[in-house]
Amino acid sequence: MTVGVVGGGQLGWMLGRAGDPLGLRCRFLDPAPDAPAGRAGELVVGAYDDPGALDRFAAGLAVATYEFENVPLAAARRLAERVPVHPPPGALAAAQDRVAEKTFFESLGIPVAPWRAVDRLDDLRAALAELGCPAVLKTRRLGYDGKGQAILRAPGDAADAWARLGGVPLVLEGFVRFRRELSVLAVRGRDGATASYPLVENVHADGILRWSRAPAPDAAARQAEAEGYARRALAALDYVGVLAIELFDTDGPLLANEMAPRVHNSGHWTIEGAETSQFENHLRAVAGLPLGSTAPRGVSLMLNLIGAVPDPAAVLAVPGAHLHLYGKAPRPGRKLGHVTLRADAPEGLDALERELERLLRSPSPGG
Amino acid sequence: MTVGVVGGGQLGWMLGRAGDPLGLRCRFLDPAPDAPAGRAGELVVGAYDDPGALDRFAAGLAVATYEFENVPLAAARRLAERVPVHPPPGALAAAQDRVAEKTFFESLGIPVAPWRAVDRLDDLRAALAELGCPAVLKTRRLGYDGKGQAILRAPGDAADAWARLGGVPLVLEGFVRFRRELSVLAVRGRDGATASYPLVENVHADGILRWSRAPAPDAAARQAEAEGYARRALAALDYVGVLAIELFDTDGPLLANEMAPRVHNSGHWTIEGAETSQFENHLRAVAGLPLGSTAPRGVSLMLNLIGAVPDPAAVLAVPGAHLHLYGKAPRPGRKLGHVTLRADAPEGLDALERELERLLRSPSPGG
Repeated sequence: MTVGVVGGGQLGWMLGRAGDPLGLRCRFLDPAPDAPAGRAGELVVGAYDDPGALDRFAAGLAVATYEFENVPLAAARRLAERVPVHPPPGALAAAQDRVAEKTFFESLGIPVAPWRAVDRLDDLRAALAELGCPAVLKTRRLGYDGKGQAILRAPGDAADAWARLGGVPLVLEGFVRFRRELSVLAVRGRDGATASYPLVENVHADGILRWSRAPAPDAAARQAEAEGYARRALAALDYVGVLAIELFDTDGPLLANEMAPRVHNSGHWTIEGAETSQFENHLRAVAGLPLGSTAPRGVSLMLNLIGAVPDPAAVLAVPGAHLHLYGKAPRPGRKLGHVTLRADAPEGLDALERELERLLRSPSPGG
Repeated sequence: MTVGVVGGGQLGWMLGRAGDPLGLRCRFLDPAPDAPAGRAGELVVGAYDDPGALDRFAAGLAVATYEFENVPLAAARRLAERVPVHPPPGALAAAQDRVAEKTFFESLGIPVAPWRAVDRLDDLRAALAELGCPAVLKTRRLGYDGKGQAILRAPGDAADAWARLGGVPLVLEGFVRFRRELSVLAVRGRDGATASYPLVENVHADGILRWSRAPAPDAAARQAEAEGYARRALAALDYVGVLAIELFDTDGPLLANEMAPRVHNSGHWTIEGAETSQFENHLRAVAGLPLGSTAPRGVSLMLNLIGAVPDPAAVLAVPGAHLHLYGKAPRPGRKLGHVTLRADAPEGLDALERELERLLRSPSPGG
């Protein structure tokens, strides 16, 4: 069975690797001839909005899916006329626009931080007066890894922020006091069965995910709440595949920040740290196979390698360290790989974490 | 770094998969254009004894290794003139000839079953008189999966067995009363560091491995003995990479049956069941990287899929079942894949094992 994957980045690469032993061959569509996923399956090189490339990509597929949420909706719909597409294009629509996303969460009774749509400088000033400072102004579309965002610390910042981001639809998000960021990864099969991984604790810097720890410490009491959010979202979208929801852990209820209708960086630890990886479970779901166990195997800490790669030999000398290099050219701010530390118990992770942190502060010159 | 692997079967495929995340790209040499490893790296199609193919294969490699032990020695030596070859060709020489192998074990004080070299029918009769019946007559070279063997139950069977196997150098092995078959998988790095996986219990039928269970139940008391054998063999050969030694568990010492200078079928469980798989550790060793932890993660049961493949959906419905299909055309007696069941404790495996056994008795018609 051939599974089409729109996008050929590292998520596609890990999907392709997960499918191969199950007899699921992935075919990727990506504009870059050196896309990492090309090492894990057939690569169709073409633009996502090129009908010819889309049709070559779609020919003979049993099912199609995607590894990033900014797939043009027209492309997803063109594909859906030819082959079954999971998750449904409706999930893309909800995830691509921050206002649609927040409206979607609210329609399901899933709380979010206070927000206002902003289309003009006047809207921004009014929203800021209502929500107070600090607040974050974001583009409604195409933001990722902290791009397309501005923090407003005082009402006087409005004009500057508008000058930087204005001209496209925006959203202002009120400041929320939260303890930490969590994420829930859930999966739904074609038969409607669902499963969730344990909550993950995430640490971002400069808008980019740096660390994920799973299961999130002291989060068992929040698991049911997060799974409830995920189940409502999955059912409402008639979703098939893995869905990630980023959450703020507050003194009140968990607040949904955003969702990704795909496998997610905060789920990379599942390769070694769970019985079935998010990649395998996504493919099992879209291919109509039974879901695999989402139970953790010990505790895991995932670290992104951003902009530079440490000496592989030094990383591999850390017991329980698992190295994943994506084979991408180094560039500042670019995700080049990740390392997952796994241990049977949380105590085992701490020393390893310090050792690895030291390594990551001294990336290899060749990185 | 490009690692050359002579042979492109399922072992090569799993080596290629293990190397990719470490930045180690495997290139395979195999006469079959549809060799499974072609999905996990570049495939050079050519005969193992074709100098032109060998040279194309060798060009630009950082190091070469093999995934089967019957690589022609001349080919290994030709490669060794061009690139570092691990394990050393001397290990191939010792493993390719059952008499050389037994002599090697005995030279290290590693006990083996009684044996006699047999070159003529008269030798066979004399050896049978000395060792008694039953006994097993085997070709000294190129036997695998039970091929090239005859069991002699009475002195009168000698002529028939000779007629079947004679004409090539043979060895007669005396019958040994043993409780079970075990194997030890050990790995040695370029720096001389060694590590061993827990002992594995193996069940063969018709000369083909059917099941492996790891860690072998009630075998902890035998671990040091087996590791001692492995360490002696690794040091004597100045070995680099994974070495497997098959053992008979008797009332006396463990007896060495044979060795494989490569990753081994009885180590497939390490993909899910150990912190670092045998495939990754073999590549770490030959590439000069630090060895990874060989600690088990719970208990594992590996079942070979031989001749036919069960319905993947039924296998994946068994919790903790991990499916590995090699993508080979079905043929009686052919290894087409394997399933590893993993659980945190031995009790967890038993019910799963029964469920899977039931499935394997009813292979899918499409298998």
